[in-house]
Amino acid sequence: MSSEAPVIVVGAGISGLSAAKWLEEAEVDVVVLEARDRVGGRTLTKRDPLVKYVDLGGSYVGPTQNYVLRVAKELGIETYKVYEEKDHLFYKNDSTRRFRPGSLPPIWNPLALLDLNNIMRKIDRMGKEIPVEAPWKAPHAEEWDKMTFLQFLNDTCWTKTVKDFSKLFINVNVTSEAYEASLLWFLWYIKQCGGTKRIFSTTNGGQERKFVGGSLQISEKLAARLKGKVVLNSPVVAIEQDSMGVVARTLDGREYKGSYIILAVPPSLQMKIHFTPSLSPLRNQLLQRAPMGTVMKVIVYYKRTFWREKGFCGSMIIQGGDDHPIPFTLDDTKPDGSYPAIIGFILADKLRRLTKLTGEERKQLVCQSFAKALGTDEALKPVHYEEYNWMSEQYSGGGYTAMYPPGALTMYGRELREPVGRMFFAGTETATSWSGYMNGAIQAGERSAREILYSMGKITRDKINREEPVFTDIPGVPFTTTFWERNLPSVGGFLTFMSLITALGAASGAALWYHKYAK
Amino acid sequence: MSSEAPVIVVGAGISGLSAAKWLEEAEVDVVVLEARDRVGGRTLTKRDPLVKYVDLGGSYVGPTQNYVLRVAKELGIETYKVYEEKDHLFYKNDSTRRFRPGSLPPIWNPLALLDLNNIMRKIDRMGKEIPVEAPWKAPHAEEWDKMTFLQFLNDTCWTKTVKDFSKLFINVNVTSEAYEASLLWFLWYIKQCGGTKRIFSTTNGGQERKFVGGSLQISEKLAARLKGKVVLNSPVVAIEQDSMGVVARTLDGREYKGSYIILAVPPSLQMKIHFTPSLSPLRNQLLQRAPMGTVMKVIVYYKRTFWREKGFCGSMIIQGGDDHPIPFTLDDTKPDGSYPAIIGFILADKLRRLTKLTGEERKQLVCQSFAKALGTDEALKPVHYEEYNWMSEQYSGGGYTAMYPPGALTMYGRELREPVGRMFFAGTETATSWSGYMNGAIQAGERSAREILYSMGKITRDKINREEPVFTDIPGVPFTTTFWERNLPSVGGFLTFMSLITALGAASGAALWYHKYAK
Repeated sequence: MSSEAPVIVVGAGISGLSAAKWLEEAEVDVVVLEARDRVGGRTLTKRDPLVKYVDLGGSYVGPTQNYVLRVAKELGIETYKVYEEKDHLFYKNDSTRRFRPGSLPPIWNPLALLDLNNIMRKIDRMGKEIPVEAPWKAPHAEEWDKMTFLQFLNDTCWTKTVKDFSKLFINVNVTSEAYEASLLWFLWYIKQCGGTKRIFSTTNGGQERKFVGGSLQISEKLAARLKGKVVLNSPVVAIEQDSMGVVARTLDGREYKGSYIILAVPPSLQMKIHFTPSLSPLRNQLLQRAPMGTVMKVIVYYKRTFWREKGFCGSMIIQGGDDHPIPFTLDDTKPDGSYPAIIGFILADKLRRLTKLTGEERKQLVCQSFAKALGTDEALKPVHYEEYNWMSEQYSGGGYTAMYPPGALTMYGRELREPVGRMFFAGTETATSWSGYMNGAIQAGERSAREILYSMGKITRDKINREEPVFTDIPGVPFTTTFWERNLPSVGGFLTFMSLITALGAASGAALWYHKYAK
Repeated sequence: MSSEAPVIVVGAGISGLSAAKWLEEAEVDVVVLEARDRVGGRTLTKRDPLVKYVDLGGSYVGPTQNYVLRVAKELGIETYKVYEEKDHLFYKNDSTRRFRPGSLPPIWNPLALLDLNNIMRKIDRMGKEIPVEAPWKAPHAEEWDKMTFLQFLNDTCWTKTVKDFSKLFINVNVTSEAYEASLLWFLWYIKQCGGTKRIFSTTNGGQERKFVGGSLQISEKLAARLKGKVVLNSPVVAIEQDSMGVVARTLDGREYKGSYIILAVPPSLQMKIHFTPSLSPLRNQLLQRAPMGTVMKVIVYYKRTFWREKGFCGSMIIQGGDDHPIPFTLDDTKPDGSYPAIIGFILADKLRRLTKLTGEERKQLVCQSFAKALGTDEALKPVHYEEYNWMSEQYSGGGYTAMYPPGALTMYGRELREPVGRMFFAGTETATSWSGYMNGAIQAGERSAREILYSMGKITRDKINREEPVFTDIPGVPFTTTFWERNLPSVGGFLTFMSLITALGAASGAALWYHKYAK
């Protein structure tokens, strides 16, 4: 194979296209093979007069996501802030409470407040010992990877209120249940997004912004720059490599010869490819142990932003059974106030149970839930409804990202982005900064491109990994913790303290009595 | 598509070939497409003058495995009994103890004996409520599926001795770690093999016999009966179906048209196929949640059966760190006493850690471990060594069988053998009697064939599932439990009882004292 053969990129999502762009700019020829009839992978923007445009897949960006913010700016794509100017809503046990953006949900039980403060603080503190590039090297890696997040909650939470909220917290952040996910993996995930506050916040967090015109533009504009080098409708079914080069075969029987190849698809979808030579034992089994999460995106359109009139911004946390399919919503009205809408997610077990309903049935359930939470029948009268079930996508496998059951990360994680001969690995799952997001897709794609440039002798090894400069237009403000957040005891600590106080009180009372009367 | 188009079977392991044979005998034309250059799937018999023949994959059969015993007899393949006429060996903490076949390992601590009796009894009792054909319908299905087997051990075991032994028990039975496996799945697995004693025993259990000449003969003889209808070197990369028929495409671009198709490959390997139309949301995600177990088979050949001279039959349970790679062995000498050998398994985490060693390094470790356990340097002098790493097999994914992490069985299990249009599912993973074994492969293959005969109108619905008659040449003897096995308390129960006795004793003493002196 001549060294002029292109680099083959499998997958025209944001990660693969970012890899291709980086290579092209280094004057390396590329060809991008995409299974679907469109680019974008897990990002998908629908354009339709009824919605103008709507992101049915990955959509949110925020400060500290420096990779995606830099690339979007370069492509001329602007962001807007998600509407958060009024109260958040917290619905549970048939009752609605309000709270201010940036504060904890309104929990009135003081023990539960201690408990919530403690669990979030603990997640962040445990995260500090986890290296983002190698979570299996954390001092407690084995212990934490052998536990599910649910076991951690059972061991740590004192109140049902906080255990329930923490289950919602993992549902929303990684589209998995607490009982499925490795504790180590979830702690790593939160850490590499910047912590519990960064990942869960709108303002100053992961949900601060969306792209004007939709996130699919990133892939479309990247593909446009690649001038016809993206080949659609070309699922790769086989990759053969030897010391001379690589051959990729597509489902329709075409053959592409390359010097190197980048797999910019999630680990579980790499199972769709027949490899010659076979993968290593560990990689062969890793691909079977990183299933994609379970999510459906739902957008309900209304005539008016009636929730704003009631003093709500549209951000809702809704706890309940399957009659409340969506635990987390945001306002999805366009920035100019047109197309009033609320967006939400059906996640994990709820989606697994509700996936067999019709869209119309789900729409009814969702609107009834919104009506209860917002306290108005106006929620029952949507003018339009959109939903997109990522579970059913053969070429995504699910969303938002891969999840790891107990043990997978410590026993197989080292193989995740370890090159195999002429084959390199991109995809947001291989990232270390907002892995699972568009930001991670770009970080991983560009890194894989530089790995190949290094293999070609075009750059030195120290240039493979690079620190992305802070995107100064949208800088992240550090989250400050209050004295009380840092120092309030856990419920256990509080109860010990109270027992001590009681014991000391009793003892000093006894001493006083003794001193006064008994001498 | 004419109704004369053959039924396509994907996979020429025992399950696919059994399906094809059943269809052929019902005068339905078939074509079997096999990815490898051989038949047999997870069974593989190596013939070589150094070993005569040796099973490097599935090998053992025993009473109650009525499907495989019937088919083997029909094919003229004989069984022989695994040698078990002397003592078993239990090695732990640098010390070797002997015990008799059929009894529990020699645990001297009476609390640990109570504890062991209790955990095995509990696994069997909990199994009683699990329907083998639908474990997700068990009364406690959700509770047990959200736990790992390790959590159950932590909740149930009082002694480290029994917790360690139980971890070995799951390693050996399903090639997984206690912390990976859903409790519900493991309980189901044990139950559908007939319980803890049936699955773990040699005589009267799953390891009673092997096939003279090796288990690969089953597939070879089945394939021979199919007279050239098995096509090797044909990995299926795509399946398209509509109301008229099915098309399967192979990696080399050939197209096979069929009336129906049977997938006789494990769930995770079905990911290798591109489906048109796409699978349902649940099936699309099920295939990502049933990874194959982790096992390497090792056979060490010696000049003499020196262990028999020391009064051991060759069945060993060896507990220890990575310097003891193999936790479970059996004699693998040929029935006439030739080719003296010990066979064992490297499993789960130990294999994941040791897979990167060379075969020579593993051989050293294994022989040193055997030398310690058997107390003789003769174990250090093998005349030959065989090993086979199922982790590295692209077209098995691992072995013995698929495993389920927490949640997969209750949320996705219903899809396991639910037909999808013209597509039906075989493979030992879809069986309900010794699933994971050759027996399950045959049960599942034949059932899938009858599902198609029913779809063709050739049989009635009630003929799809049939009870396999007991194979009377090798009948299973029911395991009897002793009065003590049934009635001994758990450690917890024992301690409660002892406290009661102590309290009652103290109370009656006090009463006596009161009666005697205080009145």
